[in-house]
Amino acid sequence: MGAPLAAPLVARLAIIGFGLIGSSIARAARRSNCAETIIACDAKPDVLARVRALGLADETTDQPEGAALGADLTILCVPVGGYGEVARRIGPHLKRGSIVSDVGSVKSSVATSVGPHIPAGVHLVPAHPVAGTEQSGPDAGFASLFLHRWCIVTPPDDADPQAVERVAAFWRALGSNVETMGAAHHDLVLAITSHLPHLIAYNIVGTAADLEDTLRAEVIKFSAGGFRDFTRIAASDPTMWRDVFLYNKDAVLEMLGRFNEDLSALQRMIRRGDGDGLFDLFTRTRAIRMGIVAVGQETAAPDFGRAREDGAAGG
Amino acid sequence: MGAPLAAPLVARLAIIGFGLIGSSIARAARRSNCAETIIACDAKPDVLARVRALGLADETTDQPEGAALGADLTILCVPVGGYGEVARRIGPHLKRGSIVSDVGSVKSSVATSVGPHIPAGVHLVPAHPVAGTEQSGPDAGFASLFLHRWCIVTPPDDADPQAVERVAAFWRALGSNVETMGAAHHDLVLAITSHLPHLIAYNIVGTAADLEDTLRAEVIKFSAGGFRDFTRIAASDPTMWRDVFLYNKDAVLEMLGRFNEDLSALQRMIRRGDGDGLFDLFTRTRAIRMGIVAVGQETAAPDFGRAREDGAAGG
Repeated sequence: MGAPLAAPLVARLAIIGFGLIGSSIARAARRSNCAETIIACDAKPDVLARVRALGLADETTDQPEGAALGADLTILCVPVGGYGEVARRIGPHLKRGSIVSDVGSVKSSVATSVGPHIPAGVHLVPAHPVAGTEQSGPDAGFASLFLHRWCIVTPPDDADPQAVERVAAFWRALGSNVETMGAAHHDLVLAITSHLPHLIAYNIVGTAADLEDTLRAEVIKFSAGGFRDFTRIAASDPTMWRDVFLYNKDAVLEMLGRFNEDLSALQRMIRRGDGDGLFDLFTRTRAIRMGIVAVGQETAAPDFGRAREDGAAGG
Repeated sequence: MGAPLAAPLVARLAIIGFGLIGSSIARAARRSNCAETIIACDAKPDVLARVRALGLADETTDQPEGAALGADLTILCVPVGGYGEVARRIGPHLKRGSIVSDVGSVKSSVATSVGPHIPAGVHLVPAHPVAGTEQSGPDAGFASLFLHRWCIVTPPDDADPQAVERVAAFWRALGSNVETMGAAHHDLVLAITSHLPHLIAYNIVGTAADLEDTLRAEVIKFSAGGFRDFTRIAASDPTMWRDVFLYNKDAVLEMLGRFNEDLSALQRMIRRGDGDGLFDLFTRTRAIRMGIVAVGQETAAPDFGRAREDGAAGG
């Protein structure tokens, strides 16, 4: 978390969609004093009731139009599939000189879904905080979610540099490390670091769910390190992930194609008993792991990141 | 860990192969006082030097014959592919009435690789402690590795019940929950809970390793929750895992076949933009997760099991 600011960076901050990410932004913004007034907007009455009970915002509304009205920074935190509708509704109410941003895991589609609804004089600066948990809803959020995590800002080519810098400063104030790249490139990188792993995890857990009853019960009972980690990933929000795969289709299918080719080769090695081939692959993959530890994205601590006394199982 | 025993359960305990698992057994056996004398056997001089430096055993040797001579319980902790050779060497030296066990992740193959070398009057009782980390070697072991983890014992149909009970009691003394099942069934259950997840993790990290240099560097830099967890799994011991896939080939190929069918269906949903199909699958997989949490194999704590302040990334 950055040092608290002398004067808030944003006078009126509208957060549209108040789940895990939206509520974490509100908590982090309050903790770092980077927003004077926080407006929470969500379509669900029970979510707004929780926001009021938890005291997470200064104002609450179920109308995006009202939330965006007069806001200096409006952040879309709904699933990517809901962007078009929200943008259509807020567009006419956006203040000249204000900024619209988002937190979606897919960035190329923002230009087409949100772009057309942004009036002249308003800045669209998409962003993606690469942070989250497998839980959902306003109660699941926490102020340190973005701390030391990447936030990737993907401004369009003609973006106003000052607006881009304000979004970057906002995320730095929330504790993130900010990086800027093109939207299409972001989508390709995330397809392999995040989207494909989630797809595979959903798939393997789905395969287990379809097993015969007795076998499935034992799979649950003896759930070991690998599978258990996959079930955690596959417990992520279904709506958000449905939209990720619908809106990052091309990059995901590209990476899935490569994955499938490699898996066929691996299957063939097993069928033919090619021990040398298996050993070579299993040795090569260690280098990637060492790279990740080296750049500080992970510790080298053993046991799948869990404390030893309740340690993860392997084997 | 069970309460320390009044008299050691095993007078002479020979551990052949002194890596993560073998050294953890020695540590746990000493802590629970369930072995009077511990003999460490490993082919590598540097491993034996570490064992002596760490004081993990009472005797050390690089000769399996000598380790097994006079032992009451001999546990094979080498990769599954090395079983036949070790069994051939120790067979003639095994004490009548003693027990030979192992810790391998594959159980059906033990009967054929070890079985023929076991003389009459010696009991073969295979076992599989479902515990481990992605690290290797005697320094990576720790006494609580087996605590509250399953140990699956897979006695042959004609096994001596008393010998089976002694192996079960040994693992309970090390803190494990013991379950008995047939070897073939074990191999099928583990194929989906452990072997297939490892295969998939190795594969996806392999796919990333083959990316163009620039893209690969960014994948490492922005490594998010899903992928980072996969790299951890894919950092496991290459020799052990090569042998798992060679010796549990049939069950792994069976589960991989089902996985591939499901993945094709999922790929098709993405290509066709079938949002309802994706949402249904992503909702169904949550039930398996809830089952695992319900049987106590995992906590419901968020953030991929990591502490929040250095929390795992998602999205």
